[in-house]
Amino acid sequence: MITVLAGGVGAARFLQGLVAVHPPSDITVISNVGDDAEFFGLHVSPDIDIVMYHLAGLADEQRGFGLRGDTFQVIDAIGRYGYDTWFRLGDGDLATCITRTHLFQKGRTLSEATQEIGSALLMPVRITPVTNDPLRTKIRSDDGVLDFQEYFVKRRTEGHAWEIIYEGSEQAAPAPGVIEAISSASTVLVTPSNPLVSIGPILSVPGVRDALRATEATVVAVSPIVGGKSVKGPADRMLRDQGMEASATTVARLYADFVDVLVIDSVDEGLAAGIEELGVRAVITDTIMDSMEKKTALARVALAAAG
Amino acid sequence: MITVLAGGVGAARFLQGLVAVHPPSDITVISNVGDDAEFFGLHVSPDIDIVMYHLAGLADEQRGFGLRGDTFQVIDAIGRYGYDTWFRLGDGDLATCITRTHLFQKGRTLSEATQEIGSALLMPVRITPVTNDPLRTKIRSDDGVLDFQEYFVKRRTEGHAWEIIYEGSEQAAPAPGVIEAISSASTVLVTPSNPLVSIGPILSVPGVRDALRATEATVVAVSPIVGGKSVKGPADRMLRDQGMEASATTVARLYADFVDVLVIDSVDEGLAAGIEELGVRAVITDTIMDSMEKKTALARVALAAAG
Repeated sequence: MITVLAGGVGAARFLQGLVAVHPPSDITVISNVGDDAEFFGLHVSPDIDIVMYHLAGLADEQRGFGLRGDTFQVIDAIGRYGYDTWFRLGDGDLATCITRTHLFQKGRTLSEATQEIGSALLMPVRITPVTNDPLRTKIRSDDGVLDFQEYFVKRRTEGHAWEIIYEGSEQAAPAPGVIEAISSASTVLVTPSNPLVSIGPILSVPGVRDALRATEATVVAVSPIVGGKSVKGPADRMLRDQGMEASATTVARLYADFVDVLVIDSVDEGLAAGIEELGVRAVITDTIMDSMEKKTALARVALAAAG
Repeated sequence: MITVLAGGVGAARFLQGLVAVHPPSDITVISNVGDDAEFFGLHVSPDIDIVMYHLAGLADEQRGFGLRGDTFQVIDAIGRYGYDTWFRLGDGDLATCITRTHLFQKGRTLSEATQEIGSALLMPVRITPVTNDPLRTKIRSDDGVLDFQEYFVKRRTEGHAWEIIYEGSEQAAPAPGVIEAISSASTVLVTPSNPLVSIGPILSVPGVRDALRATEATVVAVSPIVGGKSVKGPADRMLRDQGMEASATTVARLYADFVDVLVIDSVDEGLAAGIEELGVRAVITDTIMDSMEKKTALARVALAAAG
């Protein structure tokens, strides 16, 4: 059994490779929910959806969110009503959000709604949110505390991120099965996702980090920082905003208490010794997932590193 | 000041004529809400919307509801998730419903939401729901009590309508301004709409019928029954299902306690004497609104009948 801690696009790409080399029915994905949001009263779960859309073969891989070939009729019409539409939800994506919100109204949890939507999308893996409780990543900026999507989409991550806040994390309980999935796994994989705003919120849920430290599974992370830069997104800049170096070494340091192995890119070979000094084994390979072959190759390396 | 009691398509067509012959800013429309419904958690107000879409020049006049040239991306996607989509809301129409539902979540009433949406659609007249409270028309059928849209859209009005129920009407309060609009009007017009399921729910709100009886305004109704048939929709069959004759005379009888004048079609000239015996003056004209000219002509006749 493999359990995967997943953020957004990096996780989705990694999982595309993983399901090609390991039986999907043995895989449980624990998804970040810190970037969930409500737009026009509809619940958006970007990380859950982008993983599902990728695994269903429906993702807009260019844009990095939403559905390929989606239309924007509704959001444009809402815009004509004079409302802010900087969060450009496509029509098909909106159908997912309407369905999810409606399932909430009928009393379902996010876990249950995710299972129902995943089932309609013929998800080959089990996907669960890390928590069913409201957990929202906020960014303390020069203009005050921003909702994550306001920082990420509306402001395009401009400005200094002084602090990353996992609002609601102290009261959040792990969703049913989350702790068990970590404890009973033979391998736990941490996808190459932003350690601060993708993996960080998962780790902030009480009990999750303890379970990762305690599990007998080998825990293998893949660094999202390559050659001092994030492969995609603002992870490098956000790390520096927190006073940290943007490097695979920092990733190793952030995860050192629960990770056994960090897969780093060949360009970071020179960092291996420093990482191993942190008690984390470094495995070196090509981590840039710009083709299906490279995705499966990376998944194989991560699985082999778990032994 | 003119106050108009309005149902769906018949009301919308009549109002297109009325705003062409009378200053729209002097017109208040009191809309039926009995056919409001929730689909996928979104609040649909079909009668309010079809009137607004017609007056904004955006209506799908062929289909009789929704927006001209609308697309159906979201409802099709929701269908792919396995849900019932017999209520075919277009994308632009859905944007109206999402906006309205979101305004409710922010604490606005249906009156306030209608005003905000109407304002975005540059409504020339004031439109208010008859009540902000939940008032839902239900149909007692051979298969039990049906929601109105289930009877009207899903079952295409098939089967015997044993009883029309205005659920919630006893607890419903008139929306702000409704009673005043009736009391202070110089003319009240009742559009050629289904007396049972369009005008009936309006009359069922406590205080409304009394205000209509008490107003010094001349109250002029236009019969939706022409030559024993409804111009559009199931009014004729529903009247017969209730044991009534489908005729302009029945319309006069249903409204006799508050209507001064009933405008009937030339084909029903023979009914005029019987209608006048009910204490309702009959005015005879062409009531079929199949062109803009006929809509304005009908509006002129109704206004002239009010004196």
